[in-house]
Amino acid sequence: MPSLPSKTLETFPNPAPERDFHIHMEIPEFTCLCPKTGQPDFATLILDYIPEKLCVELKSLKLYMWSFRDEGCFHEAVTNRILDDLVKATKPRYMRLTAKFYVRGGIFTNVVAEHRKKGWKPAPKVELASFDTQSNTRG
Amino acid sequence: MPSLPSKTLETFPNPAPERDFHIHMEIPEFTCLCPKTGQPDFATLILDYIPEKLCVELKSLKLYMWSFRDEGCFHEAVTNRILDDLVKATKPRYMRLTAKFYVRGGIFTNVVAEHRKKGWKPAPKVELASFDTQSNTRG
Amino acid sequence: MPSLPSKTLETFPNPAPERDFHIHMEIPEFTCLCPKTGQPDFATLILDYIPEKLCVELKSLKLYMWSFRDEGCFHEAVTNRILDDLVKATKPRYMRLTAKFYVRGGIFTNVVAEHRKKGWKPAPKVELASFDTQSNTRG
Amino acid sequence: MPSLPSKTLETFPNPAPERDFHIHMEIPEFTCLCPKTGQPDFATLILDYIPEKLCVELKSLKLYMWSFRDEGCFHEAVTNRILDDLVKATKPRYMRLTAKFYVRGGIFTNVVAEHRKKGWKPAPKVELASFDTQSNTRG
Amino acid sequence: MPSLPSKTLETFPNPAPERDFHIHMEIPEFTCLCPKTGQPDFATLILDYIPEKLCVELKSLKLYMWSFRDEGCFHEAVTNRILDDLVKATKPRYMRLTAKFYVRGGIFTNVVAEHRKKGWKPAPKVELASFDTQSNTRG
Amino acid sequence: MPSLPSKTLETFPNPAPERDFHIHMEIPEFTCLCPKTGQPDFATLILDYIPEKLCVELKSLKLYMWSFRDEGCFHEAVTNRILDDLVKATKPRYMRLTAKFYVRGGIFTNVVAEHRKKGWKPAPKVELASFDTQSNTRG
Amino acid sequence: MPSLPSKTLETFPNPAPERDFHIHMEIPEFTCLCPKTGQPDFATLILDYIPEKLCVELKSLKLYMWSFRDEGCFHEAVTNRILDDLVKATKPRYMRLTAKFYVRGGIFTNVVAEHRKKGWKPAPKVELASFDTQSNTRG
Amino acid sequence: MPSLPSKTLETFPNPAPERDFHIHMEIPEFTCLCPKTGQPDFATLILDYIPEKLCVELKSLKLYMWSFRDEGCFHEAVTNRILDDLVKATKPRYMRLTAKFYVRGGIFTNVVAEHRKKGWKPAPKVELASFDTQSNTRG
Amino acid sequence: MPSLPSKTLETFPNPAPERDFHIHMEIPEFTCLCPKTGQPDFATLILDYIPEKLCVELKSLKLYMWSFRDEGCFHEAVTNRILDDLVKATKPRYMRLTAKFYVRGGIFTNVVAEHRKKGWKPAPKVELASFDTQSNTRG
Amino acid sequence: MPSLPSKTLETFPNPAPERDFHIHMEIPEFTCLCPKTGQPDFATLILDYIPEKLCVELKSLKLYMWSFRDEGCFHEAVTNRILDDLVKATKPRYMRLTAKFYVRGGIFTNVVAEHRKKGWKPAPKVELASFDTQSNTRG
Ligand SMILES: [Ca+2]
Ligand SMILES: [Ca+2]
Ligand SMILES: [Ca+2]
Ligand SMILES: [Ca+2]
Ligand SMILES: [Ca+2]
Ligand SMILES: [Ca+2]
Ligand SMILES: [Ca+2]
Ligand SMILES: [Ca+2]
Ligand SMILES: [Ca+2]
Ligand SMILES: [Ca+2]
Ligand SMILES: [Ca+2]
Ligand SMILES: [Ca+2]
Ligand SMILES: [Ca+2]
Ligand SMILES: [Ca+2]
Ligand SMILES: [Ca+2]
Ligand SMILES: [Ca+2]
Repeated sequence: MPSLPSKTLETFPNPAPERDFHIHMEIPEFTCLCPKTGQPDFATLILDYIPEKLCVELKSLKLYMWSFRDEGCFHEAVTNRILDDLVKATKPRYMRLTAKFYVRGGIFTNVVAEHRKKGWKPAPKVELASFDTQSNTRG
Repeated sequence: MPSLPSKTLETFPNPAPERDFHIHMEIPEFTCLCPKTGQPDFATLILDYIPEKLCVELKSLKLYMWSFRDEGCFHEAVTNRILDDLVKATKPRYMRLTAKFYVRGGIFTNVVAEHRKKGWKPAPKVELASFDTQSNTRG
Repeated sequence: MPSLPSKTLETFPNPAPERDFHIHMEIPEFTCLCPKTGQPDFATLILDYIPEKLCVELKSLKLYMWSFRDEGCFHEAVTNRILDDLVKATKPRYMRLTAKFYVRGGIFTNVVAEHRKKGWKPAPKVELASFDTQSNTRG
Repeated sequence: MPSLPSKTLETFPNPAPERDFHIHMEIPEFTCLCPKTGQPDFATLILDYIPEKLCVELKSLKLYMWSFRDEGCFHEAVTNRILDDLVKATKPRYMRLTAKFYVRGGIFTNVVAEHRKKGWKPAPKVELASFDTQSNTRG
Repeated sequence: MPSLPSKTLETFPNPAPERDFHIHMEIPEFTCLCPKTGQPDFATLILDYIPEKLCVELKSLKLYMWSFRDEGCFHEAVTNRILDDLVKATKPRYMRLTAKFYVRGGIFTNVVAEHRKKGWKPAPKVELASFDTQSNTRG
Repeated sequence: MPSLPSKTLETFPNPAPERDFHIHMEIPEFTCLCPKTGQPDFATLILDYIPEKLCVELKSLKLYMWSFRDEGCFHEAVTNRILDDLVKATKPRYMRLTAKFYVRGGIFTNVVAEHRKKGWKPAPKVELASFDTQSNTRG
Repeated sequence: MPSLPSKTLETFPNPAPERDFHIHMEIPEFTCLCPKTGQPDFATLILDYIPEKLCVELKSLKLYMWSFRDEGCFHEAVTNRILDDLVKATKPRYMRLTAKFYVRGGIFTNVVAEHRKKGWKPAPKVELASFDTQSNTRG
Repeated sequence: MPSLPSKTLETFPNPAPERDFHIHMEIPEFTCLCPKTGQPDFATLILDYIPEKLCVELKSLKLYMWSFRDEGCFHEAVTNRILDDLVKATKPRYMRLTAKFYVRGGIFTNVVAEHRKKGWKPAPKVELASFDTQSNTRG
Repeated sequence: MPSLPSKTLETFPNPAPERDFHIHMEIPEFTCLCPKTGQPDFATLILDYIPEKLCVELKSLKLYMWSFRDEGCFHEAVTNRILDDLVKATKPRYMRLTAKFYVRGGIFTNVVAEHRKKGWKPAPKVELASFDTQSNTRG
Repeated sequence: MPSLPSKTLETFPNPAPERDFHIHMEIPEFTCLCPKTGQPDFATLILDYIPEKLCVELKSLKLYMWSFRDEGCFHEAVTNRILDDLVKATKPRYMRLTAKFYVRGGIFTNVVAEHRKKGWKPAPKVELASFDTQSNTRG
């Protein structure tokens, strides 16, 4: 049965609702159309969220992204719209969407939007030294 | 109809005024003249802002940057002046302009200036782990 | 005597329980199975903790990671489960587990979960300039 | 007048046909469909060529790439097909096309194909030290 | 129908047998067992080849790699063995396999082996300037 | 008229005294002598400041740095001394000097010192996502 | 006496005409106008040459680059034209010019052209291991 | 007179005790023995401190590090022990020691420990944009 | 039974003597003493070889490297000596040893030496595009 | 007895004159004066050579570099002059000097010169895969 683009975002139950934990997803395969010129636009999306009762299901997220392929979208609007859809589907404690668009007119544009559940507060951050991970092999 | 350099910054309505969201633009094609020697200066500009009712339009931003091509500008002054113009045009909740100038006299200079709307306060930051994005392909 | 995979995490006494100090471990050799397809999944795990009375022993940590090799695990669930096991074994003041999974469906997923001992508070951070370490040799 | 996707590649006369010179173009905005699943595929294309009488025109190259947006294409076949089209349009002394596809099934695939004009030979290489360019600004 | 690990490598017809072209595949998800200790080993494999009549099919390549998951393999032997299997399945004009193993005993080991079809010769290299691709977005 | 090394730091009026803005200067050409051995020492200096009424003039800053060429200086002392001189000349709201010295005895030393004007307080930081700038060209 | 843009390239005598040696210059401050739209274009130029009797003087090279600021230039043509001017001024044994243009239409273009003195041949290359230089300081 | 390894840490008077300033030292040449196997262990140490009346002298620090060459040391214990010795010798306002050990059993371990003088408090951090330093030369 | 440092290099039979293949080993844990001052020296060694009948065994290579820990060695001499020992033990078709020493006197030194079996010739190189591997995870 | 700058280059006997081997030295601490303006210039020097009977002694090389501190030197001339001095002192089979100068007038200049002993020929290169070394620790 073939997959099709879809605006439906499927979810599964949060396996650890007793703690605030952070899910980070990088989605490099986003494309839509420029509403003014009709030409293709491209972006890498970064999704960060702290789930409440639901997590977003990976495959449906991919099909959801595919659904923008033939739609006209402004950079600032589409970032806010995707965030709205994801919030509606998963009702998270916290969610942030970062969209990094490919260069247009010699200018690079990124858009960052976030949602916080009313009344939710993050635990105060424990600041530790942080260290980069490197490639697991040499050369 | 050909484009021309212009100090006019066009705007469009903020598509999500109900939330504070962040627009980041990198503008690598800035050049002006040194007011002392008349020789060309170059910089990369970084614009970060949280819009109120208006967003700056990409193409007019490009033409605005072009308008400095034949003007004499000191590093510290031009950064503050561009910020002033952008603030006047968009009246943002928050705006920060970072200018990275090419080396002069063996010294590298960057200037960072910001504007905050009176009475506006950022929501307390939700601190998450952050991860670099990499190239979408290998090699 | 050959080593075998094991869910038992061995510990040794914290050599400096009088101070909060930070142990960071990067574990690039994690693999389990996808519970839906049975196919292998891979991740790099990052463990950060502040020990109380016990530290986790390196070799048993390695055998513990090995023990997931033939188990079916969802990304979000296994990260929380490993954190739970490590917390149970070492009862740390603070522990954070970061799991960076290999790409699936064109999407990269990282999961970050943490545990704090009740009543424990980190000393306020002393913010210093930080500097990257580089390779110890040239070329 | 709006632009439309097009398989037509426009050209302009080589401004320096008296010497072999090298034109390198990086085209990060390529997307087509997987002929088996219908799902989107993505790639960055790299075009290197030594023109004879004609150079490929930038805007038509962009529209040409757009024309694959709704076509089903296998990685190995589409790389060879684009090379064939470009060779037919420009009849270059030498041309190489490198396609770097986004990961599928956990595997990264690049395809490299080249065309040489019959009887053309490159001048023997003059081997010089090579040095990377860095960012033009600091930070 | 679930996928299963398999030593069978499927192929498809080379879409451009009229030219020597280069297929490069990076396979980061290889794991086997150390034949001396039984403990897991990990590697990233890099496959470079110039096909003759057949190309290796992506999904079967993935299942083939999976088939080593429970086998004991020495670094030097398994690299040569995989090359032998791939050569037998595809009978390429040229094939090179590079295996980058994770560190053991504080030492990093890579193994590189190649096969050339009898009588086949590569066209003399056209040496061009080469340029790195970077991320398609900023930040 | 030739330039000469000089301990005099020239200034010019702050073009935007109505706001706190940040000037960052990287000075890679610092050398002095080791007071114990008389041998040359080298460092890269980083100057960050928020001006009050005066900014430091670029050329005089260069000549000032030159003036240390024949002086014996300890790492810790010279960093504090240069900060003192710059503070005396510009009376800034805030100033930080970072000195990164070349390796001595196999050990790399950096020194960071700062000055704050009495009574001055920075506006609370607006925390935004930050993004690296990359090279403006490819390859 | 102020400097002015100039197409005159000044030279000085090669200090070591008895050997073939290599001079490499990176010129990040090139800008001209697009002949079709009149809008600014930007590039980084890389000059590599082996002098015969004359070397190009640094300051005049800078003023020469400045002279293109108000001229309309196609990418491929201007690279060949600058090479021609430099060859005419210095009559080198070998010269290569690499121009890396800023992105236009989402496509990055580099152009590489070279000149060889008739009858001149490079000594056969001595192939040594090569090692990257790193920053001279840490952090 | 030859140098010898020594546990004695020499000091010199803080040249700027009137301000809190930060000294950062990277010590890449640390080796000791594994107390269980007797085999060599290696680490890079990073020392960050804010001196009170005394600074640690560079050469004695090197000889001190050498003194561990033939001693058996656990990772967690030796990091805390070196911090204790350095604190005892210099009685700093603040000190942090970061030890990055070479990989063992496929796992990378870093340990970070700190000391604060009783009653000492850091001035609230002035948060500025930070910019990476790059190599002082090109290529 | 504890391991001990040893000048004995153990070998195992080449599993693919029918082809020339390349084994690359990076050995970051080398230390010896300076014969003039008695102070520790450090290096990263890189071993590249094409085996004939024998391969060098990993663990004995580690113990061999350990055996230099208390010996006085000049940089140039020890690199050639280790190459001699490895050649004697394995009689390879080709072997290259690269030693990258830690900085001394502000100067970084690398030494590269190689051995070729009499009469052995490498097959002519097949030049393919080469692509860097990156980290297998994001961030 | 203090060290002094000196034009004398000391040597020691080549420990392996029976083979061509490669010594690479990176010398980041070079400074001289501009002969036109008297202002300081800076460079990183890279020395690569294949010794005959003599190697250059590290400490005298450092003092030799120091000897240029108060001399006026043009970029192209000083690189050739240092190569001449090193060749005279060591009479190597092959020597290459690379000088990377700090930016002047917005232009970066590198100079590369080499010397070959009459009648000496390098053995034909054995081309192997090459792999970058990374930092020996994580983070
Ligand atoms: Ca990073
Ligand atoms: Ca590589
Ligand atoms: Ca980044
Ligand atoms: Ca690359
Ligand atoms: Ca950094
Ligand atoms: Ca390298
Ligand atoms: Ca590069
Ligand atoms: Ca940056
Ligand atoms: Ca980033
Ligand atoms: Ca950065
Ligand atoms: Ca490059
Ligand atoms: Ca380089
Ligand atoms: Ca840095
Ligand atoms: Ca690399
Ligand atoms: Ca990272
Ligand atoms: Ca780091």
